[in-house]
Amino acid sequence: MKATLMYGAGDVRVETVPDPVIEHPTDAIVRTVRACVCGSDLHPYHSLPHGDHGRPMGHELIGVVEEIGDAVTTVTPGDFVIAPFAYQDNTCVFCREGFHTSCLYGGFYGSPEVGGLQAEFARIPQADGSLVKVPGTDPASADEGLLASLLSLSDVYLTGHHAAHMGRVAPGKTVTVIGDGAVGLSAVLASRRLGAERIILMGRHTARTDLGIEFGATDVVAERGAEGIARVLDLTGGEGSHVVLEAVGHMPAYEQAYGIVRPGGVISRVGVPQYEDAPIGFGSLFGKNITLTGGPAPVRAYLEPAIRDVLDGVIDPGRVFDRTVAIDDVPAGYAAMDARQALKVMIAF
Amino acid sequence: MKATLMYGAGDVRVETVPDPVIEHPTDAIVRTVRACVCGSDLHPYHSLPHGDHGRPMGHELIGVVEEIGDAVTTVTPGDFVIAPFAYQDNTCVFCREGFHTSCLYGGFYGSPEVGGLQAEFARIPQADGSLVKVPGTDPASADEGLLASLLSLSDVYLTGHHAAHMGRVAPGKTVTVIGDGAVGLSAVLASRRLGAERIILMGRHTARTDLGIEFGATDVVAERGAEGIARVLDLTGGEGSHVVLEAVGHMPAYEQAYGIVRPGGVISRVGVPQYEDAPIGFGSLFGKNITLTGGPAPVRAYLEPAIRDVLDGVIDPGRVFDRTVAIDDVPAGYAAMDARQALKVMIAF
Repeated sequence: MKATLMYGAGDVRVETVPDPVIEHPTDAIVRTVRACVCGSDLHPYHSLPHGDHGRPMGHELIGVVEEIGDAVTTVTPGDFVIAPFAYQDNTCVFCREGFHTSCLYGGFYGSPEVGGLQAEFARIPQADGSLVKVPGTDPASADEGLLASLLSLSDVYLTGHHAAHMGRVAPGKTVTVIGDGAVGLSAVLASRRLGAERIILMGRHTARTDLGIEFGATDVVAERGAEGIARVLDLTGGEGSHVVLEAVGHMPAYEQAYGIVRPGGVISRVGVPQYEDAPIGFGSLFGKNITLTGGPAPVRAYLEPAIRDVLDGVIDPGRVFDRTVAIDDVPAGYAAMDARQALKVMIAF
Repeated sequence: MKATLMYGAGDVRVETVPDPVIEHPTDAIVRTVRACVCGSDLHPYHSLPHGDHGRPMGHELIGVVEEIGDAVTTVTPGDFVIAPFAYQDNTCVFCREGFHTSCLYGGFYGSPEVGGLQAEFARIPQADGSLVKVPGTDPASADEGLLASLLSLSDVYLTGHHAAHMGRVAPGKTVTVIGDGAVGLSAVLASRRLGAERIILMGRHTARTDLGIEFGATDVVAERGAEGIARVLDLTGGEGSHVVLEAVGHMPAYEQAYGIVRPGGVISRVGVPQYEDAPIGFGSLFGKNITLTGGPAPVRAYLEPAIRDVLDGVIDPGRVFDRTVAIDDVPAGYAAMDARQALKVMIAF
């Protein structure tokens, strides 16, 4: 089959590799219908040391079950399924508490052992916990918008939702979203879905913030740093935002977050932090009773109601995809996202 | 009147100063019945540069209203009252949201303008928001234990409660409290009051951890650092604690906190951080979806129900006081707390 491998920064290749096979009785093999490139794939695209062995890429997928291991009971060949970006058994203590990305028997795609999902086929470990059926939908006849929205549930939309959920977004709240990438825009849509009264989107790429407005942003702030902080404080009568959803992961975004959050408010991060140490003392978080939360989204926890929302037309998160490529053109897809020519790239098989 | 002033590290003096007077129509003058020394008073006791002008000390008090300004309506001379450790109007937007320590019209005791509460009399700004009556109680005839418990509500117990409240302590939760000082022990008692299933107290002063057990601790861990982390993980079947209440404020306590909290858990800090930058990236908080919360306790938000709990005998938080001094002996009280000969020192007038 064809699969995507990264050999170092900027060096993405599509190569023919052996088809995956069932290795454990809890595995399933899925034929990919749609996959995509994630904003987080750009981190190794910038920094991965060059090597002789390519890293298998991709962790987002919708597809059709081809084969199941002997222990798999919840899906069967022919089922149309979504795979969350992490695998999990969905039954361990941390899964039961809603934090599936910490599953005792789970893990992440993209290692030599588990493989990546930007590929024609994929081995899905812990298939009973890691695949969720899309009811009543035939991917062969479904429209492109529906497929895109279902694909977005494997990571990007539910990462935005996780930010909002952990940030306790609710009716009456003012929410500020930092970052107009696909996760930031998803956080806007999720905040609207959770009933936020006001949604301020901080970003300066007009094509993206325009989609943010369609997703529910009530204000757009293009300024950054001290100017951006002043602008949000101004918009909130000097009080600051109840909730700040940080969808970037770099230190200036974090500094912006604690600058605009109001006393007693919440900063919820879903941009993977590209730093370890940061201010959390009296002058940043403690003095104002700020709560800091967030982490890798336990997509599995939110998947069933989100599938219903998509099938019912309540949300259309697939609009973050603005380019579709065939598997052979995945390297061009990475380049387009890196150059900000594309917001998020879908791979059609 | 006699008042406590600190002239530099280790240099606490009781001096005769002018009696406070009403300066604003929203002020009240209170005659102190009991005051006390706070663990946070030991920070300047260790580090305050020496100077010619003493810093007025103290921010915890129960007393009797002597005089009120023209605008004060909720208390009247003769009322027996508790003063939370910060003053506030109790009506501004942040007070209404429950974060009184960020009151737009509030502030802290201990400046030359506002004065300290380790004194025979005190001027209380924003008296309508800053004094709460104790119903049906005459301080002249009340027993010592009741007075101690009421005094503890001005700061220490409700700081422990704030930690537990922000940490979302609830039935079924495993809570670990770091620190066996008066705030840590209060956090144990508050966690029991909120229904925690298991309360692990990390501390190694047996006299203190014994009181912690009486307050509801189910386990005591004397080890610190990596050994302490291993011990708590062992006690929790390798899973870690749902909630960690950090009542110390030094970096090793914070490092211990993220070592023992379970995925999806909460670290709630009420020890004033003696650091600004600390680890919050993938390896400490983000990867496990840890929530970090806490700050200066909005005592006012919790005061009425806590007064009822004390008057009804549901809680006895005043047991953290293990020494009582007269005003002239306050310097010896500081020294005893600093030497850990006393857990918390009450000042009787």
